[in-house]
Amino acid sequence: MTHIDVAKAAGLSETDLTGGSLAVHSPIDGAEVARIKATDPAEMPAIIARSQSAFKTWRNLPAPRRGELVRLIGEELRAAKEELGALVTLEAGKIRSEGLGEVQEMIDICDFAVGLSRQLYGLTIASERAGHKMSETWHPMGPCGVISAFNFPVAVWSWNAALALVCGNPVIWKPSEKTPLTAMATMKIVERALARFGDDAPDGLLQLIIGGAEIGEALAISKDVPILSATGSTRMGSIVGPAVMSRWGRPILELGGNNAMVVAPSADIDMAVRAIIFSAVGTAGQRCTSLRRLIVHKSVKDGLVDRLVKAYASLPIGDPREAGTLVGPLVDAASRDAMLRALEVAKSEGGTVFGGTAVTEGVPKGGAYVVPAIALMPAQTDIVKAETFAPILYVMEYEALEDAIALQNNVPQGLSSCIFTLNMREAETFLSAQGSDCGIANVNIGPSGAEIGGAFGGEKQTGGGRESGSDAWKGYMRRQTSTVNYSAELPLAQGVKFDL
Amino acid sequence: MTHIDVAKAAGLSETDLTGGSLAVHSPIDGAEVARIKATDPAEMPAIIARSQSAFKTWRNLPAPRRGELVRLIGEELRAAKEELGALVTLEAGKIRSEGLGEVQEMIDICDFAVGLSRQLYGLTIASERAGHKMSETWHPMGPCGVISAFNFPVAVWSWNAALALVCGNPVIWKPSEKTPLTAMATMKIVERALARFGDDAPDGLLQLIIGGAEIGEALAISKDVPILSATGSTRMGSIVGPAVMSRWGRPILELGGNNAMVVAPSADIDMAVRAIIFSAVGTAGQRCTSLRRLIVHKSVKDGLVDRLVKAYASLPIGDPREAGTLVGPLVDAASRDAMLRALEVAKSEGGTVFGGTAVTEGVPKGGAYVVPAIALMPAQTDIVKAETFAPILYVMEYEALEDAIALQNNVPQGLSSCIFTLNMREAETFLSAQGSDCGIANVNIGPSGAEIGGAFGGEKQTGGGRESGSDAWKGYMRRQTSTVNYSAELPLAQGVKFDL
Amino acid sequence: MTHIDVAKAAGLSETDLTGGSLAVHSPIDGAEVARIKATDPAEMPAIIARSQSAFKTWRNLPAPRRGELVRLIGEELRAAKEELGALVTLEAGKIRSEGLGEVQEMIDICDFAVGLSRQLYGLTIASERAGHKMSETWHPMGPCGVISAFNFPVAVWSWNAALALVCGNPVIWKPSEKTPLTAMATMKIVERALARFGDDAPDGLLQLIIGGAEIGEALAISKDVPILSATGSTRMGSIVGPAVMSRWGRPILELGGNNAMVVAPSADIDMAVRAIIFSAVGTAGQRCTSLRRLIVHKSVKDGLVDRLVKAYASLPIGDPREAGTLVGPLVDAASRDAMLRALEVAKSEGGTVFGGTAVTEGVPKGGAYVVPAIALMPAQTDIVKAETFAPILYVMEYEALEDAIALQNNVPQGLSSCIFTLNMREAETFLSAQGSDCGIANVNIGPSGAEIGGAFGGEKQTGGGRESGSDAWKGYMRRQTSTVNYSAELPLAQGVKFDL
Amino acid sequence: MTHIDVAKAAGLSETDLTGGSLAVHSPIDGAEVARIKATDPAEMPAIIARSQSAFKTWRNLPAPRRGELVRLIGEELRAAKEELGALVTLEAGKIRSEGLGEVQEMIDICDFAVGLSRQLYGLTIASERAGHKMSETWHPMGPCGVISAFNFPVAVWSWNAALALVCGNPVIWKPSEKTPLTAMATMKIVERALARFGDDAPDGLLQLIIGGAEIGEALAISKDVPILSATGSTRMGSIVGPAVMSRWGRPILELGGNNAMVVAPSADIDMAVRAIIFSAVGTAGQRCTSLRRLIVHKSVKDGLVDRLVKAYASLPIGDPREAGTLVGPLVDAASRDAMLRALEVAKSEGGTVFGGTAVTEGVPKGGAYVVPAIALMPAQTDIVKAETFAPILYVMEYEALEDAIALQNNVPQGLSSCIFTLNMREAETFLSAQGSDCGIANVNIGPSGAEIGGAFGGEKQTGGGRESGSDAWKGYMRRQTSTVNYSAELPLAQGVKFDL
Repeated sequence: MTHIDVAKAAGLSETDLTGGSLAVHSPIDGAEVARIKATDPAEMPAIIARSQSAFKTWRNLPAPRRGELVRLIGEELRAAKEELGALVTLEAGKIRSEGLGEVQEMIDICDFAVGLSRQLYGLTIASERAGHKMSETWHPMGPCGVISAFNFPVAVWSWNAALALVCGNPVIWKPSEKTPLTAMATMKIVERALARFGDDAPDGLLQLIIGGAEIGEALAISKDVPILSATGSTRMGSIVGPAVMSRWGRPILELGGNNAMVVAPSADIDMAVRAIIFSAVGTAGQRCTSLRRLIVHKSVKDGLVDRLVKAYASLPIGDPREAGTLVGPLVDAASRDAMLRALEVAKSEGGTVFGGTAVTEGVPKGGAYVVPAIALMPAQTDIVKAETFAPILYVMEYEALEDAIALQNNVPQGLSSCIFTLNMREAETFLSAQGSDCGIANVNIGPSGAEIGGAFGGEKQTGGGRESGSDAWKGYMRRQTSTVNYSAELPLAQGVKFDL
Repeated sequence: MTHIDVAKAAGLSETDLTGGSLAVHSPIDGAEVARIKATDPAEMPAIIARSQSAFKTWRNLPAPRRGELVRLIGEELRAAKEELGALVTLEAGKIRSEGLGEVQEMIDICDFAVGLSRQLYGLTIASERAGHKMSETWHPMGPCGVISAFNFPVAVWSWNAALALVCGNPVIWKPSEKTPLTAMATMKIVERALARFGDDAPDGLLQLIIGGAEIGEALAISKDVPILSATGSTRMGSIVGPAVMSRWGRPILELGGNNAMVVAPSADIDMAVRAIIFSAVGTAGQRCTSLRRLIVHKSVKDGLVDRLVKAYASLPIGDPREAGTLVGPLVDAASRDAMLRALEVAKSEGGTVFGGTAVTEGVPKGGAYVVPAIALMPAQTDIVKAETFAPILYVMEYEALEDAIALQNNVPQGLSSCIFTLNMREAETFLSAQGSDCGIANVNIGPSGAEIGGAFGGEKQTGGGRESGSDAWKGYMRRQTSTVNYSAELPLAQGVKFDL
Repeated sequence: MTHIDVAKAAGLSETDLTGGSLAVHSPIDGAEVARIKATDPAEMPAIIARSQSAFKTWRNLPAPRRGELVRLIGEELRAAKEELGALVTLEAGKIRSEGLGEVQEMIDICDFAVGLSRQLYGLTIASERAGHKMSETWHPMGPCGVISAFNFPVAVWSWNAALALVCGNPVIWKPSEKTPLTAMATMKIVERALARFGDDAPDGLLQLIIGGAEIGEALAISKDVPILSATGSTRMGSIVGPAVMSRWGRPILELGGNNAMVVAPSADIDMAVRAIIFSAVGTAGQRCTSLRRLIVHKSVKDGLVDRLVKAYASLPIGDPREAGTLVGPLVDAASRDAMLRALEVAKSEGGTVFGGTAVTEGVPKGGAYVVPAIALMPAQTDIVKAETFAPILYVMEYEALEDAIALQNNVPQGLSSCIFTLNMREAETFLSAQGSDCGIANVNIGPSGAEIGGAFGGEKQTGGGRESGSDAWKGYMRRQTSTVNYSAELPLAQGVKFDL
Repeated sequence: MTHIDVAKAAGLSETDLTGGSLAVHSPIDGAEVARIKATDPAEMPAIIARSQSAFKTWRNLPAPRRGELVRLIGEELRAAKEELGALVTLEAGKIRSEGLGEVQEMIDICDFAVGLSRQLYGLTIASERAGHKMSETWHPMGPCGVISAFNFPVAVWSWNAALALVCGNPVIWKPSEKTPLTAMATMKIVERALARFGDDAPDGLLQLIIGGAEIGEALAISKDVPILSATGSTRMGSIVGPAVMSRWGRPILELGGNNAMVVAPSADIDMAVRAIIFSAVGTAGQRCTSLRRLIVHKSVKDGLVDRLVKAYASLPIGDPREAGTLVGPLVDAASRDAMLRALEVAKSEGGTVFGGTAVTEGVPKGGAYVVPAIALMPAQTDIVKAETFAPILYVMEYEALEDAIALQNNVPQGLSSCIFTLNMREAETFLSAQGSDCGIANVNIGPSGAEIGGAFGGEKQTGGGRESGSDAWKGYMRRQTSTVNYSAELPLAQGVKFDL
């Protein structure tokens, strides 16, 4: 199939793909796939106003009815899984299985949100006053902006949108400029669900805006967008977060990760090797949860590194559309160059690098293909502490577990982490208050590949937001604490007396 | 008792009260009570380092043991209730019953936090992978700064400190420059509890810093203070919030309120009158939850205003230490002047003002006493939308409930609100998604005087933070999502396949 | 369509419908619809063993995967809604809309359970010992028997099965002998879902047994059926409950209701009339939540009774398959006779009866059709306290609300109740600790027609079980409290010292 | 101190201790301590009526106020800890540290319940109907009977009473006939708390009844005691449970345990030895959670048994009041005889027994002292499956973990269990759905000595009840599901249409 055919199979029309000013390239071969229309920043006020207007209707629809729309979106996603997955591969460069996995994640969050639509549990609370009842209820907030990144071009939207919709909020989505097509294709799927859903869904409930920083900024500064969920770089978040907070909005930030694995002496090394390879080179190291740091016990380090170096040497790198490929292209040449630069710095800081070269043979021309790198580091140097969005695995060694944990924690980011060990004391210590400081801490699985049932996110430069499962939905609602006095008395709390 | 005697009865020594550079005045009569030592801003790094060091120990102590310290603080507060309450009256100008009520609130939150110390519930979560278990655990965060305001000089600290301590965090407290004595007296109480608690409490667990914006800023910008809870004006919050967020900390903001009561035709007017008076003139209108706006149905407005005007005319204004006084002084002359200015603006915007004059007769000399004001407004003008921290009650009328709700919501602040009605449809509508947009929404009680069992706070310019009951404790902890693989397989989430 | 056609449209084959010994009659006309095979009691041990065997496999399947089966059942129910609804009408005699509503309820609980499959939340709990972690996890229990009644021939199974499946338990279903066809048709739907689900579902996961008390008793006494959910009469429950408990199983009982509505002076009488009619005559008064007692304030009683008597006079009684019919047949002649006897007793106890006669004109021959009855009672006599499963509405009057509540509570059953009032004090009092003692207490809606999001059931003779929403799922799992010591110390709880 | 002095120190008077018909003996030396008045069974109706009357008042008191009484009880227990602990030692024969630990447990549950008194969280739930709100509230149930056993003569009452009181229920306590003095002393403590609490506590809130099966039966059969919590033998529970259920009450059963420890090859054997000794011989093997079965991996069995046999040989057996004693007397000679009989059976079933003899030297005359027994068993024979309430430790071996788990589960009881292992796969498997079937499952701590923060209890012959922490409090309340319609429409759930 040609690029265009893939886009069309995913529901995009000739009109969608042509006649605009924004060129979309596939990382696979750098070819221009489409030239689409960008959103005029001048339209943003009207777009936001439409969302506010939709809110007035949508918030009054009972949540289970709102959930029905999400259920239909899930059904349509199931029906379109193959085609949307293929478009993810085309536009983000992921291998097929990962493209499909991303759509599966969208489906999973829809299922979860449907169940949630009959919960959204608040609390009834024992009151200290007779004839009074206290409760806490969660209410819709208003328009929810979603800024997503190229590496999960559709799943991140779904995490936010499925919850936001069920919670009673319209959504305005600004995908990465690099991946507008998957967003547009997702909106086609949404339209099919909306058509089946009928008139209860107001106009403007789910909107897509395409373009760059200017339209993102419009979301960030508008008082009429009470929630802004932004996934991307720490740099982006450092602008968006304070901007949203300054106008009293609520930012939900999912920013950088610098994710580590501790490999303890008792680790099942076979499993560790497989986990490392998936976590470090999957999505060409471009997941926010990609494994970037390997902290290995001295006693097992040499053997593990040997196995990794060998395994890396045989990684199938190439066209992500082909069965068997595990490492597709980086998103663009700039990413590749950044990777190469980082490796130079690593060397200058004492590192020994395996792999990490550009690949030009046996891969589609025009794509930015690289051999994933392993960099043995003498210490956790500056370059190790920085997130380079590419398949570089820094390896360090440790002797005492507390040192391994200190290394793991001593970076500015706080997203994901794991330990491989069969020793329950080590495992539990890693998960304890003295353990990993990340929002995600796993045992015997890599840092990458979260299930949607848990809350996703982390503190420090990761931004502190939480999405997906657990009570992350509360981030999309406002909390109301109510005391109702149904007596004919007026007692004051804390026994205060105040009578004229 | 002299002022000094009151301070000494609350445990402060001559040394505490003299020899410093910061003069402390009582709002009762403007007299200087003490001249105390301020914290040198240059000491802040050491203070924060001490807190970080305390954290390393405290976080490892089991939470129920941490709760035992809070229980002891509660016991000591019970023992010192009279004396600390009297000092609150002296330093903040509250009437006796309110001074005692504030201490009671400290006691209540301690009781609540003790129970919490055997909960701090995370979740176990069904995993999609065989041989895997998923859970979410809450861990201590680190030093928690608390910036509190003059109007609740001790309770706000206790809301934060009781939770923070149980959650495993040391606390650094910066009270208002206007009310350092109550803070110092509270620390004396804490020291007694610490002495009974024994060696498990590390040095630096609970610290007090005294001074102005400079030391507050030190908390705001330090990466080593991951949580900063700040209570005060919206102006202060607009500086502190983005500052904390910019260095990836977590702000908990409790800022301005512009709290309204809707009085519906079916309201029990006797109860409404009493609730209005307590809410509007209690604490001389200087609560964050003070009633500031009265939105009355046309059909009952004249009668209600008449009763209020009459009642206001007989309010016992004066020395808050005296039994019978209901309205004590404003905190200082600047507050009084701001009130008078606001009333002038109200008049210029079409308002008719009752009361609102300075009182000089029958009150202690040197204090800023005022007659609480009622301002009948033709509409919700600009001055009504602004929070003036003084006893001004703006009165507006409505005809349809939805208009009343729109008025209630159409201010920048979002703290507290209430409706007086006996009609269940009106009551429930007010509490629904189309109702009040405040964090607190009550029925048949005023906006003021929350119980500690509910979460306290609100959105918009109120800052979005939550303190006190419900799951507000989560704001003091970091969330960890963990997946543990205890199988010998390595399945990936979302069915992704990735095998070399 | 003939009866047989309706059964076949719902997926039943000639073989299913013939050649057995158990005759199935339609309440519509008393005609024999089928003659089906009953389960030989001698087979019960093998059936239960198959369920136990299925349990060993099913409990190990991750809950979200188990949820996928429930999702597929939901999809298949959506597809078969019309046909299954029609069969409910045929076999239980419900009107069309109620037949469809019952299937909708099955669909709803499936949606809810799918969401639940990624939750099944246990707790992590703060431990009092250093290096220890405490948690509570919920595990599958084993085979779950479901005994259901004729009046909700399929929904009750789905409430139990959807939760039980997601919770990891196989299900053995014994429907009422009067309604085996709908059960068989449901199993056809389930089989389609199982076929799509694939090999992960073990043989014997969902079994149907058909017959009478003997096979029900086999479930009740078997130690290998740890959970037995039984819906039906209090008499049945009084046998099953202690039997299950005696062999240390867990009964979930949903037994009789004697549901009341209080109509207060401020009630919206138009709404009350409509609610009364639906609640009292819907399903011909054969819901466990049917309205049976009307407790009306003296001031509005006469007017309300007049309207009801008039409305009852125009009720469309007849063939439930016909559009417009609101009152279909009773399940059989014995039910009709019991109703007529009850009305005689009511008269003998001082009651004045309207309606309550058998209908033979304008209705299908062979069915037990009646005019719903209104019985004005001088007091809450013995017959009023008994549940007669037929459309009899006893009317009593009250003056003070507390008397109305006392009347409401003073029956042996505890299922459902409601108040119609616009007065919030009355509404809240009814819902308070001094209010209704029923498991369900509503305001301004009838006692009947619960949403699946709440827990369903009640205390007293209603049996104490809970099904459907909220945390009713916990009734299908076993709770495990775990403390894990990952330290190298062995401290004892409560500070006990015990060292050799 | 003489026995009488110990009783008096705990607050009992001459009048309390003399003049009655029920002789109380100390297990220490068999001496008669007191002769007290038993409750006349004929008084039971009046006692229950008093409790019902107290309920009417107590349920209306706000829960935080009810919690205050529990807080005061906790304070008084702290003050009386030494004396009550000593009386526990005297009357139940526990060593000092365990006597004090039991009182500490009472204190802990009071702290927990105080916190709970501002929670008792129900839910607000998303409704499927516009203008409707759904919630679930927990209400007081009524009088709660507590039947407790001799081995925890006061803690079990406190677990129940602290929760029941906070939940709004009066309590009627029937302690073991063998330990009425500790119960009476506890009531003295309660009276001091009640005196401080003031008039809000109704007469009859906390009652004590003393005597045997006849008064227990009065609680079991009374419809006016909706909750009956019974701790004791499976035999007792098999009578009480169905009796309570038959009259539609709610039994909370805490019955037998037959608790096992699995010792895996990687276990920290030093820790295991210490845990085994405490769990198996602490309280002379008379805890419901006492370790009774040791399931040891073949590879470590001989070494472990050697160490245990040696350690058992040096156990300090004797007067529990003496410092250093670890094994006090059995409760009476009958218990000792039952132990000796069980050991004879064990031998006849192929067991090799170490210890297990009566001790008469170096111990107080008149007490039933024994050497704790270790019985190496060739298989899990009948005697191993029975709970003998004495210090017998049956030892069996295993090779594969799944066999160890099968052995652990293959007994009729389901209370507590544990594994000692450092291998995280084994630990997690033991805690999983395929693992232990007990209500309590621990890792690296013994089966005994639960913290109050978790729920306590188990399935199978253990009775299924839960007490203490987590949401066990729900067992003391009734659940109310409410839907409030505040609209002027009357939509039916599931989209049912029913309009006249």
